Amino acid sequence: MLRATVMGSVWATRRLEALPSGALLEVRTDDGATLIAFDVLGSGAGERVLVATGSVASGYFGPDHPPLDALIIGSLDEPANEEKEQR
Amino acid sequence: MLRATVMGSVWATRRLEALPSGALLEVRTDDGATLIAFDVLGSGAGERVLVATGSVASGYFGPDHPPLDALIIGSLDEPANEEKEQR
Amino acid sequence: MLRATVMGSVWATRRLEALPSGALLEVRTDDGATLIAFDVLGSGAGERVLVATGSVASGYFGPDHPPLDALIIGSLDEPANEEKEQR
Amino acid sequence: MLRATVMGSVWATRRLEALPSGALLEVRTDDGATLIAFDVLGSGAGERVLVATGSVASGYFGPDHPPLDALIIGSLDEPANEEKEQR
Amino acid sequence: MLRATVMGSVWATRRLEALPSGALLEVRTDDGATLIAFDVLGSGAGERVLVATGSVASGYFGPDHPPLDALIIGSLDEPANEEKEQR
Repeated sequence: MLRATVMGSVWATRRLEALPSGALLEVRTDDGATLIAFDVLGSGAGERVLVATGSVASGYFGPDHPPLDALIIGSLDEPANEEKEQR
Repeated sequence: MLRATVMGSVWATRRLEALPSGALLEVRTDDGATLIAFDVLGSGAGERVLVATGSVASGYFGPDHPPLDALIIGSLDEPANEEKEQR
Repeated sequence: MLRATVMGSVWATRRLEALPSGALLEVRTDDGATLIAFDVLGSGAGERVLVATGSVASGYFGPDHPPLDALIIGSLDEPANEEKEQR
Repeated sequence: MLRATVMGSVWATRRLEALPSGALLEVRTDDGATLIAFDVLGSGAGERVLVATGSVASGYFGPDHPPLDALIIGSLDEPANEEKEQR
Repeated sequence: MLRATVMGSVWATRRLEALPSGALLEVRTDDGATLIAFDVLGSGAGERVLVATGSVASGYFGPDHPPLDALIIGSLDEPANEEKEQR
């Protein structure tokens, strides 16, 4: 998993119907990469989170296998890190 | 998932029969990589899209498991970005 | 998927029996990486192809799941690119 | 798999309920990357370990498929490496 | 798949019981990366091999899905490359 900071939401009104309900969040990983992760925990901007990538993000949703390759699996017990957010 | 801009179509007349119907689109991700993603949403050149990579792209098509490793899962609610297209 | 140019064949007489019949081809992707992809299309040196990577390459062969992580899924409708081959 | 050194624990009290019991450990791989791996072996800070990444980390836990993408699969028969820990 | 040269063995006495019998070998890929691959072919130091990475390495072992993410699938028909070994 990767540590990351939530940067904000991403909107995609026209999308595959196979996607479950939840938010698409832009996150910046601690090694500087930006990616879009699916979130069902209600994470907010600036929050420090743990992101799992690859097919395990899809497997979480059971046999439907929605085409998702990144999922926020937890909120780190750290204060929201604004410094990292502005980097 | 990765944000990307659709660059255009790719044609491969001779190909595995296991591939479903849909378009093969060249996309440029926001971090500068170029890859070919499968599209069933009818995305067009210049359109801003969200791309899922890895085996989840195949899983979307059910038990047939076509050999696809990148799928456009949504169209971003952003204007088509010609600047990024010309980068 | 990645665009690539076929560079030639690779021979591995001693190998796992689980591998299906087909060719092991060295390909160079357009971003400069070299990898060995499995081919069932009869692709030849210099041919421009589309390569899928990861477990979807294995999934194509059904429930046997041979340990293959790259598969040529189509031949691009482009002339064989000798320039790229010599890069 | 990657060789890595355990750096310490990571805490995420609010997390998906699908996660099994075990520790979230920060590890630094020998090529300098930092990632969070799941551990069921009781590995400690400074310990030299072997980390498997990707969906195989999830597959270890059987049909529940928890969303984990890195797992410590063994402890290397090497002394704990403090030098690497301080790098 | 990646071409690689076997560098030697890695020992991990304390490890998950789910791992099958076979050797853990350090290999150096031709693009300079070092990783630990599982081997059931009896490959030796200096030998030139083909390595498959990702979940297909696990899938080779059937429904048990051991947490392995790299597997030597064949021995290349090339002389052992000592030069590459010393790089």
